Amino acid sequence: MFEARLDQAVLLKKLLEAMKDLVNDANFECSPSALSLQAMDTSHVALVAMQLRSDGFAHFRCDRNLSMGMNLNNMSKCLKCAANDDIITLKAEDTGDSLTFLFESANQERHSDFELKLMDIDSEQLGIPDTEYSATVKMPSGEFQRIAKDLGTIGDTVLMSVTKDGIKFSSSGDIGSANITVRQNTNVKDQEDATVIDLQEPVSLSFALKYINSFAKATPLSPQVILRLSKDLPLVVEYRIQDMGHLSFYLAPKVDDEDEMGEE
Amino acid sequence: MFEARLDQAVLLKKLLEAMKDLVNDANFECSPSALSLQAMDTSHVALVAMQLRSDGFAHFRCDRNLSMGMNLNNMSKCLKCAANDDIITLKAEDTGDSLTFLFESANQERHSDFELKLMDIDSEQLGIPDTEYSATVKMPSGEFQRIAKDLGTIGDTVLMSVTKDGIKFSSSGDIGSANITVRQNTNVKDQEDATVIDLQEPVSLSFALKYINSFAKATPLSPQVILRLSKDLPLVVEYRIQDMGHLSFYLAPKVDDEDEMGEE
Amino acid sequence: MFEARLDQAVLLKKLLEAMKDLVNDANFECSPSALSLQAMDTSHVALVAMQLRSDGFAHFRCDRNLSMGMNLNNMSKCLKCAANDDIITLKAEDTGDSLTFLFESANQERHSDFELKLMDIDSEQLGIPDTEYSATVKMPSGEFQRIAKDLGTIGDTVLMSVTKDGIKFSSSGDIGSANITVRQNTNVKDQEDATVIDLQEPVSLSFALKYINSFAKATPLSPQVILRLSKDLPLVVEYRIQDMGHLSFYLAPKVDDEDEMGEE
Repeated sequence: MFEARLDQAVLLKKLLEAMKDLVNDANFECSPSALSLQAMDTSHVALVAMQLRSDGFAHFRCDRNLSMGMNLNNMSKCLKCAANDDIITLKAEDTGDSLTFLFESANQERHSDFELKLMDIDSEQLGIPDTEYSATVKMPSGEFQRIAKDLGTIGDTVLMSVTKDGIKFSSSGDIGSANITVRQNTNVKDQEDATVIDLQEPVSLSFALKYINSFAKATPLSPQVILRLSKDLPLVVEYRIQDMGHLSFYLAPKVDDEDEMGEE
Repeated sequence: MFEARLDQAVLLKKLLEAMKDLVNDANFECSPSALSLQAMDTSHVALVAMQLRSDGFAHFRCDRNLSMGMNLNNMSKCLKCAANDDIITLKAEDTGDSLTFLFESANQERHSDFELKLMDIDSEQLGIPDTEYSATVKMPSGEFQRIAKDLGTIGDTVLMSVTKDGIKFSSSGDIGSANITVRQNTNVKDQEDATVIDLQEPVSLSFALKYINSFAKATPLSPQVILRLSKDLPLVVEYRIQDMGHLSFYLAPKVDDEDEMGEE
Repeated sequence: MFEARLDQAVLLKKLLEAMKDLVNDANFECSPSALSLQAMDTSHVALVAMQLRSDGFAHFRCDRNLSMGMNLNNMSKCLKCAANDDIITLKAEDTGDSLTFLFESANQERHSDFELKLMDIDSEQLGIPDTEYSATVKMPSGEFQRIAKDLGTIGDTVLMSVTKDGIKFSSSGDIGSANITVRQNTNVKDQEDATVIDLQEPVSLSFALKYINSFAKATPLSPQVILRLSKDLPLVVEYRIQDMGHLSFYLAPKVDDEDEMGEE
């Protein structure tokens, strides 16, 4: 059987909010070491990969590997019924066709159980090679979300250009053009406000803003976001989940033809 | 003539918000002892009954019984023009065709009057027998509202089961099933947080969640809600209005056939 | 060249929010003494006039008079990308076809530039004669906005009647009628809460509530609004911008025929 307990339902709630608009159905893979998920978005352009390590849970038991197909929208509906500080327990039989969510209020006065039906979902796990990237940028996730939203009012494509001094986000469209530059900055009181750039070589790549804005829905998961860029490799947008794992998004660059910018 | 004065407009504002989605038009009955209203909802399934005793008003004068037909939506529009802490006075002539609302701001700098046209509405007062119920549950109204909303995302029908230990709300639908249990709990710092169960015999009844969710719009009126249940009797959902009266809703149970659950 | 710098982007943001729903396209006129704008609303009924004096800017340079045609909606989109406390600089070449907005965050870590395309807009500047008005009312702008909104739920037309004691706003419609009176009041702790009436002779004029409600979108610009009324002259609704200028709206009275009220 599978049983996993988290002291704060809010983490799972945020995870589902971050994934449900990109992915309809996906298999949650349970193993003794982790609860994980890998899925292409509905338009088969972006890849979502999530991992929560078993040692991050208050309690975790997984007798044998399980693949649980879930509709993320339904799972999100169910999780909305949990208060943020409810204790949450996931339970499934090895051969069952449902996953049970148990919510207990902190004061023990209310307890709820929701049984969601499992689905059969065809999926293949893609191997994600462990690569060294030309540029790695760690920056405040709220700032990243805001820039994606702001540029989304100007154009469809964002050009990300990383130098050792900073990262520049550019877009253009019918009404004009915009450039937003965030400078490397480690001299901050709170590490969450730092912008740190690790550069092998300068890189400049274009991406569809629509997906960047979807990824940014994971902002509540972490105060910082990590961007990894290399020419001819998908961009990685990674949100670390404290002491437990991460939620990462992968998106292939657009052909970097200046003429194309803002026309998509 | 009829004249009634309340020191806080907010009470009437909340009352109208609680009723206006269920009932379009209704007669407000004025007598020397109370201002009251009784009406079926627009689909003729649920009954709404409101009573404000005259001694709860700052001033109350009713020379002879009056029946004032009002469109609740228009009355709500008018009340939205009052600030929460405005002093509010209702005025009507015995033979007039309008009701005047007078709003005075606490600092006396602004005063407004709104004259609403009265309507002729056919209605019959139903006698509501004073019955003893199998189960009476007093619980935090916010908790009740939340449970109704949560289960509304799962199914159409809620099964309420009361035992001496607590009340269980269950629902099921296409995506799965849910049970939420609230335990009896009188050991609380604030009496508003208590859940108290008065049980003659265990009872288990099904109701349409759509109506339960409409009733729960009265939540701002009172920190507690009282549920009264008996086999073959309508459920009573009662919100007490401090020192003045109550707003109550009545809803007949659904035929308690398990096969039907979630299919309506 | 033209270059103007404001220490707080929020002022320009509020200005655009106040104008963009009334006016689609308009020319910003730059001169060494001021940045100003005058435009009829899209239905050619109301006039909008804005002036920001050059000495109110942190920095202001205007080598020769410039007329910059802008789509206010696009300009608003661009300004939404500035944080409220960003330092904002406007830049344009004398012969260029674009206006550049430069936003710098207070901590200097983020800087953005937006280049908006200019448009050719035909416009004629109307001379607004400096008149003495029968009545001038200075009152809290929030109160004015609230009254316009409240009466908008009752009717289409507001009758403003000023006497030495106060200003009365009246409206009527299908559901009834309403009168809201604000009394002259100078005995206040905070001057922003005062209502001051300067009266040459009592005046009573009717206006379309739709426009009054549009003007009231300028409320965030100033805690007080100034109304100027004279028989046969357009109403002036003026919001003063501290130490810099003003945003004013002009609206012709409706023919003051009581029969017409609430029918428009």
